Amino acid sequence: MNEFELIQSYFSRLGNVNRLPGEEGGVVLGIGDDCAILQPPPHSQLVVSTDTFISGVHFPDQTSPFDIGYKALAVNLSDLAAMGAMPLWFTLCVTLPSADEQWVSSFCDGMESLIIASGIHLVGGDTTKGPLSISIHVTGAVTQGLALRRDGAKVGDDIYVSGEIGHGVAGLDIVLAALGDEAASVGSVELLRSLERFNRPKPRNDVGGKLSGLATSAIDISDGLLVDLRHILQASQVVAELDMGAVPVAPSVSDERLFVGKPSSERRRIACSGGDDYELCFTAPGGRRDSVEAVGSLLAVPLTRVGRIIAKTGTFRVGDVIDKVSQKSLPLAGYNHFS
Amino acid sequence: MNEFELIQSYFSRLGNVNRLPGEEGGVVLGIGDDCAILQPPPHSQLVVSTDTFISGVHFPDQTSPFDIGYKALAVNLSDLAAMGAMPLWFTLCVTLPSADEQWVSSFCDGMESLIIASGIHLVGGDTTKGPLSISIHVTGAVTQGLALRRDGAKVGDDIYVSGEIGHGVAGLDIVLAALGDEAASVGSVELLRSLERFNRPKPRNDVGGKLSGLATSAIDISDGLLVDLRHILQASQVVAELDMGAVPVAPSVSDERLFVGKPSSERRRIACSGGDDYELCFTAPGGRRDSVEAVGSLLAVPLTRVGRIIAKTGTFRVGDVIDKVSQKSLPLAGYNHFS
Repeated sequence: MNEFELIQSYFSRLGNVNRLPGEEGGVVLGIGDDCAILQPPPHSQLVVSTDTFISGVHFPDQTSPFDIGYKALAVNLSDLAAMGAMPLWFTLCVTLPSADEQWVSSFCDGMESLIIASGIHLVGGDTTKGPLSISIHVTGAVTQGLALRRDGAKVGDDIYVSGEIGHGVAGLDIVLAALGDEAASVGSVELLRSLERFNRPKPRNDVGGKLSGLATSAIDISDGLLVDLRHILQASQVVAELDMGAVPVAPSVSDERLFVGKPSSERRRIACSGGDDYELCFTAPGGRRDSVEAVGSLLAVPLTRVGRIIAKTGTFRVGDVIDKVSQKSLPLAGYNHFS
Repeated sequence: MNEFELIQSYFSRLGNVNRLPGEEGGVVLGIGDDCAILQPPPHSQLVVSTDTFISGVHFPDQTSPFDIGYKALAVNLSDLAAMGAMPLWFTLCVTLPSADEQWVSSFCDGMESLIIASGIHLVGGDTTKGPLSISIHVTGAVTQGLALRRDGAKVGDDIYVSGEIGHGVAGLDIVLAALGDEAASVGSVELLRSLERFNRPKPRNDVGGKLSGLATSAIDISDGLLVDLRHILQASQVVAELDMGAVPVAPSVSDERLFVGKPSSERRRIACSGGDDYELCFTAPGGRRDSVEAVGSLLAVPLTRVGRIIAKTGTFRVGDVIDKVSQKSLPLAGYNHFS
């Protein structure tokens, strides 16, 4: 067994997670042939997404291999959550500069923890030599016709977000300012929580699954609430009125060790513009507030109403996000890997 | 529109190929949302595979963007062919060092030509900045239970190959020896044919589809006939007797401008050990020779009987390939990216 065969054996082992009898999840034949053979659930449609992760672009260079393995899968699971889909299968392409067994072992541990938590199955992959890069392809299932899309928001719908907004941008600031060790030594719970959520975001597949058939549109917050909400608005050809004061902002965003020099008045906007939250932003009919509340209670995840969908009127254009207080269009600055 | 948005628009356009009414191929929602929404064909199983391509590893650095786009998809389609599957959908992750519009345009032209030829649909992707790398994930459909696997070869089965063997290794030698221009100027048809097959292999999806329910096992020849046949033998726990003289070797392999210094006696072995052929190697019951012949005639693709499956006896071990003439086990040297 050469070095890279050894590495591949680590990934192959990940293919055996969640394969106990009764948990096969439609995997007829897993890793090892030219292709995997998969049985889709009856009466379902499939949803698929793919993403590439590159060190220094999608995660800071100093990120631990455990967290890289975890987060690469988490971000893809989050795309399934945004469609209201149940995770089924994924494939993993890893390009590595060298056959570093310790790195790969830790990477696989991180990924395995989320494979177990999400119930997804690894069914194929490829290992190559080159600059560090990870590409993942995920497949999920939805009941036929009930996938959550971006283009279903209607005038009169409420706008919601799950969880808290801003952990991603706060966590990145903690990493860039190298505040992690200090936060740990003085026991700064809020900072540590944002760091944890930045490195190991919790994809909202449980929430997305329950919203299928209830929400009218959904997206996961990867580029920032304002930018991602705009994607819904543009696809649905509508305008949003956003109550910035209602947005549940992560407490760490107010910590003066972060965003140094930024006044408190700007911090709410920073939280709403930062990426890497992996919460869901969704719309639901005004008449179904009780149902949305019930989903939040059942899953013990805050689902907060932050605005409503309105029609294009006057000077407002499709895609605009209007601030409820000032009644002005909010400038949309999000995170762009290439800007 | 920034540079990378422009690049992404090229890939998005590829998602519109094969989308005329009646040709949607189960694509309910294509590129543009968090996920694509896909409707699997009834009574089918899905087969999936993924591969990463890196310049200088999977293709020579001087390969044209057109050929890179073509071949990256071809190699993945070949995995579907090996399972006897009909191509349905694929996703494409491209990492580019810069937003080179001309490069991307040509890359997309190459890929589009094969999208049209194969009838597959591009349903998602990701574009990132970094060292050139392409990851593709393909999905195909087979009738439930009829996927061609590696583990179905039985004692008494015949062994076949499609097309000619050795174009891949000959084509690589032409590129490495920079003989392409000379071959073109003097009209060396055989060399040009191998060069063409090396750069633009023809995945055998039509053959694979017809072999579903007829062949007992199959693999596509990516690492070399001897090595890939061995994968069937090991999965099926059997031994092969190979008639090297019957293997349909590409005429260019005999050309003295290639494999300089190699005696003619060695060239047949070189052809059987070289990778990048993307022909199919498969087994079928001895009683179904007429059916295999009928498939070859129907599709105008030579399907040549090159050996038979025998049991493990005497000194031979599972996985051994026995030379019919010498009755000795053949050494298996294939192409390994990391050897």
